Amino acid sequence: MGYFPNPIAKKLMQQKTFNIGVVVPEFVNAFFPEVIIGIQQVLIKKGYQVLIMQSNESYQTELSNVHTLVENMVDGLIISLSRETSNIDFYKSLIDQGYPIVFFNRYNDTLPASKVIFDDAKWSFFATEHLILSGRKKIFHLSAYQHLQLAKNRIKGYKMAMDKYRIAYRPDWIIETGLMMEEGEQMAKKILKSDNIPDGLSCANDMVALGAMRGLKEMGIRIPEDIAVTGFTESPFAPLVDPPLTSVLQPTHEMGEIAAKLLLRHIENEIAQPETVILNGILNIRKSSHI
Amino acid sequence: MGYFPNPIAKKLMQQKTFNIGVVVPEFVNAFFPEVIIGIQQVLIKKGYQVLIMQSNESYQTELSNVHTLVENMVDGLIISLSRETSNIDFYKSLIDQGYPIVFFNRYNDTLPASKVIFDDAKWSFFATEHLILSGRKKIFHLSAYQHLQLAKNRIKGYKMAMDKYRIAYRPDWIIETGLMMEEGEQMAKKILKSDNIPDGLSCANDMVALGAMRGLKEMGIRIPEDIAVTGFTESPFAPLVDPPLTSVLQPTHEMGEIAAKLLLRHIENEIAQPETVILNGILNIRKSSHI
Repeated sequence: MGYFPNPIAKKLMQQKTFNIGVVVPEFVNAFFPEVIIGIQQVLIKKGYQVLIMQSNESYQTELSNVHTLVENMVDGLIISLSRETSNIDFYKSLIDQGYPIVFFNRYNDTLPASKVIFDDAKWSFFATEHLILSGRKKIFHLSAYQHLQLAKNRIKGYKMAMDKYRIAYRPDWIIETGLMMEEGEQMAKKILKSDNIPDGLSCANDMVALGAMRGLKEMGIRIPEDIAVTGFTESPFAPLVDPPLTSVLQPTHEMGEIAAKLLLRHIENEIAQPETVILNGILNIRKSSHI
Repeated sequence: MGYFPNPIAKKLMQQKTFNIGVVVPEFVNAFFPEVIIGIQQVLIKKGYQVLIMQSNESYQTELSNVHTLVENMVDGLIISLSRETSNIDFYKSLIDQGYPIVFFNRYNDTLPASKVIFDDAKWSFFATEHLILSGRKKIFHLSAYQHLQLAKNRIKGYKMAMDKYRIAYRPDWIIETGLMMEEGEQMAKKILKSDNIPDGLSCANDMVALGAMRGLKEMGIRIPEDIAVTGFTESPFAPLVDPPLTSVLQPTHEMGEIAAKLLLRHIENEIAQPETVILNGILNIRKSSHI
């Protein structure tokens, strides 16, 4: 093994291109590919190349990915953290040295870095409020991995809605489930086997909601008659499933575009202090959540 | 702008990592992210980093991507061509110089390169045959961009099935549609507005099939009673839509794994001559295609 010593590569080395590295935690959900499309649309126009690496939700892989991109001398980084990432020392040292870096979606709020995030608490509040206004009282929240900031914020939104309508929810109504379809399906089946059955499920994302719907349907539960379901992070399939899934549309392309523009402003030294952009969404109400 | 001169990067430069570049045409369909997960599973275990670039179906972007990866001295490339790519001179020169390169899914069969492909003709034949055996006679094929080899092969499979059952199809029953959901939806609506209505649609992929189903349903057509539909390249949503979509499952992870293993054998000089691996699938029959 070794570097490939070819004349084309040598010639190209002299035509400097500008490269941006993008590191995402996973490729299973459509969310990250969609954000990347937004990032790329901005950067290609400006003559940048985009190098993408995915971390498979592993901190070690993420760290290797970031190292590789820095080694390959990218001019800036756009990152969404893996679910394992709690050690942020390397990011801190990059930021301290003035390395241009922007976080999106999954971030660590102790890092003094620019970030583009979604107003998860507000929109989780709206989704849960919609279930309450549709007559549901015993609403469970299937949460994402709870150390993620987005999971915390979506739980916060759920609690705000339950509190507003004075519904005395119990702590075990908030159930850590994950972000994958299989996790939603298994959790729905587990809940149905217990003696603690909800009449509504507010899910942390669409994949969990779609998995839960599959589990509920397999066990003969009617959606929404027996249990109403809402998702989050609208997938292109939300309107197509049976019944169509109520979901919060996040502006994925816009999130990518804004992250890319923010990074360019850092690279071009237009801003020195970190900026935070908080995006809003749309609650698309469909049949899964109301009769 | 310029390379970031930090001590961490300099230190890392001395710890050589081995990098593989992956270039894919698009990120809109789940297919390419799934193949990349398979590629990465093999390569991470072997200590390789995976750098991904997407071409947005543009030949110019693809060429820039490949240049950037060669400039950044990746040790090998795994590529699926954009729909625009017809000029293959650069790939030819890389291969002639012995650069390790493996194509998957979308390739150019004049290139003397290793590739991992799907037996599109065979499985398109099975999907169309299933529609015929379910009683359909006027089956249209919504094809992918027809200069793509996979589009040609899926058309070939459709024709083989129609010929086998002596159904006298007309050339205008094969309609170039694309690979995106919107394209399927628009084509379905266009067909319904004509006076030439099929009783079956064999679609080049699931996104086109899902889009077509959306278009048909909006126009009040019953699936499968009025028009039966089959997809291709099973998406995770095929079983969840209404009605569930019959589709050909392609082994996406396996395609990625095999491409990665083939590339490693080229890098380690275990094989000198190009090899072609042809994969098979499964026809998952669901309600969209038969009453």
